[in-house]
Amino acid sequence: MTDLVRSWVESANAPDTDFPLNNLPYGVFSTGSNRPRCGVAIGSEILDVAALEEAGVLDFGEALRAGTWNDFMNLGQSSWARLRSTLTALLREGAESEARLRTHIVAQADATLHMPFRVAEYTDFYASRHHAFNVGSMFRGPENALPPNWLHIPIGYNGRASSVVVSGTPLRRPWGQLKGPDDAAPRFGPSQRFDIELELGAVVGQASAGPLSVAQAFDNIFGFVLLNDWSARDIQAWEYQPLGPFQSKATATTISPWIVTADALDPFRVDPPPREVPLLPHLMDDGPMLYDISLEIGLTPDGGQETAISRTNYREMYYSAAQQLAHHTSCGCPMRVGDLLGSGTISGPDRGNRGSLLELSWGGKEPIDIDGGTRRFVEDGDTITLRGHATGKGYRIGFGACSGKVLPAEARRKPD
Amino acid sequence: MTDLVRSWVESANAPDTDFPLNNLPYGVFSTGSNRPRCGVAIGSEILDVAALEEAGVLDFGEALRAGTWNDFMNLGQSSWARLRSTLTALLREGAESEARLRTHIVAQADATLHMPFRVAEYTDFYASRHHAFNVGSMFRGPENALPPNWLHIPIGYNGRASSVVVSGTPLRRPWGQLKGPDDAAPRFGPSQRFDIELELGAVVGQASAGPLSVAQAFDNIFGFVLLNDWSARDIQAWEYQPLGPFQSKATATTISPWIVTADALDPFRVDPPPREVPLLPHLMDDGPMLYDISLEIGLTPDGGQETAISRTNYREMYYSAAQQLAHHTSCGCPMRVGDLLGSGTISGPDRGNRGSLLELSWGGKEPIDIDGGTRRFVEDGDTITLRGHATGKGYRIGFGACSGKVLPAEARRKPD
Repeated sequence: MTDLVRSWVESANAPDTDFPLNNLPYGVFSTGSNRPRCGVAIGSEILDVAALEEAGVLDFGEALRAGTWNDFMNLGQSSWARLRSTLTALLREGAESEARLRTHIVAQADATLHMPFRVAEYTDFYASRHHAFNVGSMFRGPENALPPNWLHIPIGYNGRASSVVVSGTPLRRPWGQLKGPDDAAPRFGPSQRFDIELELGAVVGQASAGPLSVAQAFDNIFGFVLLNDWSARDIQAWEYQPLGPFQSKATATTISPWIVTADALDPFRVDPPPREVPLLPHLMDDGPMLYDISLEIGLTPDGGQETAISRTNYREMYYSAAQQLAHHTSCGCPMRVGDLLGSGTISGPDRGNRGSLLELSWGGKEPIDIDGGTRRFVEDGDTITLRGHATGKGYRIGFGACSGKVLPAEARRKPD
Repeated sequence: MTDLVRSWVESANAPDTDFPLNNLPYGVFSTGSNRPRCGVAIGSEILDVAALEEAGVLDFGEALRAGTWNDFMNLGQSSWARLRSTLTALLREGAESEARLRTHIVAQADATLHMPFRVAEYTDFYASRHHAFNVGSMFRGPENALPPNWLHIPIGYNGRASSVVVSGTPLRRPWGQLKGPDDAAPRFGPSQRFDIELELGAVVGQASAGPLSVAQAFDNIFGFVLLNDWSARDIQAWEYQPLGPFQSKATATTISPWIVTADALDPFRVDPPPREVPLLPHLMDDGPMLYDISLEIGLTPDGGQETAISRTNYREMYYSAAQQLAHHTSCGCPMRVGDLLGSGTISGPDRGNRGSLLELSWGGKEPIDIDGGTRRFVEDGDTITLRGHATGKGYRIGFGACSGKVLPAEARRKPD
């Protein structure tokens, strides 16, 4: 575990900031009516790296001037390491560059944050054993909770990239086909079981054209974001057989605005859980590829106070992002810069560690307490905020907030 | 039904050409080492519309100079109509433009064809009743063949856009996790049941941010391509529960190189089949939105002759592309220019009309005859070619070939 690296940006040395110099996460910001630009979070500020490129302080060509991080990711791992070491030197306490860089610093409070990268395609996994066991137990009983393939494959499905939005974007409760077990026929109306899924999203930073080993896959992951995979459970229940979730997952997926790099998280790598069934060689563990990242879900009712409804940790996963990416390429599937891989809902062993309201309220049967009321699923006006950080000695590597407010379903259509 | 519109391009007046003046399908081609350019197929030639734009004959700004049709699609329906009417006037027999245009014509035989558009995202449906009944009967018996939601929802799942390739691109037999019903554990090896799916792909030509009616969805579809959704049945059988197909469908999806516009197909619109269960209002039929398009699958073994192994028609579908797109947006899912919607395998009522080898060989139990042998599934060296056309008076609106050759699985890994 490394120590805090002190910066001349004073707010970056506070023990509770998400963005010490050890972190250096990459985002896209704008001020006023200016075009969105690449920036790096440092304490409560943003360093305008597009301006540093224009001023000749950095030398990554057009990549940092694109208003998205895809072009930079495409430059490859040696550029990733070089930018990180350059920024660390420039921002370190005592660096000569302080005076020159101060003119390129913007307060986060004065900036609007945008999508940090163009999502090429979005894939979502189902890779926390506690989550799969909880959901399986609800629907099939604890003896048959895990599907037969679960311990052999990091099960995934393709999601909808066009629905991925950055933290702060409000979303509408979706309409969809709904059919309760006792209904004779489906009807079309607003979802009554709108839910959340606490996940970590891995950002693929290098394209590939054929199968990757787990080690190669690990190297191709640029960084991570928090991810809330909004899920309409009632739409899902009716639509998902036989080809999987579709409209239930396509209203919105919210991500946090800063890509926390794999390099920044490197000191926090941890081993996967013991394998009760050995993985096939192409998916075998190849060193510690999970991370010790504390995670939390906050629910804030309209006009009310936030309640932390769940606390869990990314180290609870059964499969790492590297294993998921290796599996994803196993048939030869081409990957592209900007592919986003959702970890799957991250649940821990106890009730307070569950990563979805479906699990927290056990299918809606056991409402949970929040400020001024209870919840089975998300209600209109609720804001859901995910937070996460790894804890170092005197610092933490945080993600910033991943937040979204649910607006009422659109009213212009009558339910069928 | 309109008559043939004669062109001064003689080959466009032949009754068996796929590309009479009535068609005018849009593609991307290159000659020598030149950059790919937008072109229109006319008879056995290609009209270089990028050159016409550069010469000032057309006036669609940068859109036709992009090397892909996405930017032009983005201009909207009135531009779609204006380009079609302009090209029809320029290419019509007796047009004054003949001498000027002759310099911008290239023989298809001298050109390489590329992807006609950038696939934003790829969605695949399961919307032919005959196909769903055949597959369901094989796995669950004829009484339970159709899933309970099938008559209410055009069932779809998100596919992998990065795997879509243009006709002529060879592909490798995929590796994947395989587990037979009697195997104790899965193994990792080349697929033994590699299959095809004959489909029509609808190309979304306008972005949308919220729910579309069926009529709005119909208007947003720019055109169609033939589509072969290569499918590894053994990988699929082991992976697809509970979240649907993933690696089984991600090796490659081949499309034909010309986008045949909805305008060109308009004279061939036909009504959907009778609805035994009424559709919910948001999915109800709104006029004839299927097309009478004859379709054929050819299988050519390495060094052998092609055998037509199936003949069917797009009018056999239960759901139209417009209904699929309306359903796709029902939860608020944003759509983008270049989204590709696979119809789902198109099977007809008889054995000779089945759109996949899974159905043609009834799960591999009834091999079919081909030149010099039999087939249960695709073998290494086989080339699969899809063809399709609508038949007018003295002309046809064709798609050109959608072809792909299967190469052996990569040898560098040993099966686990």
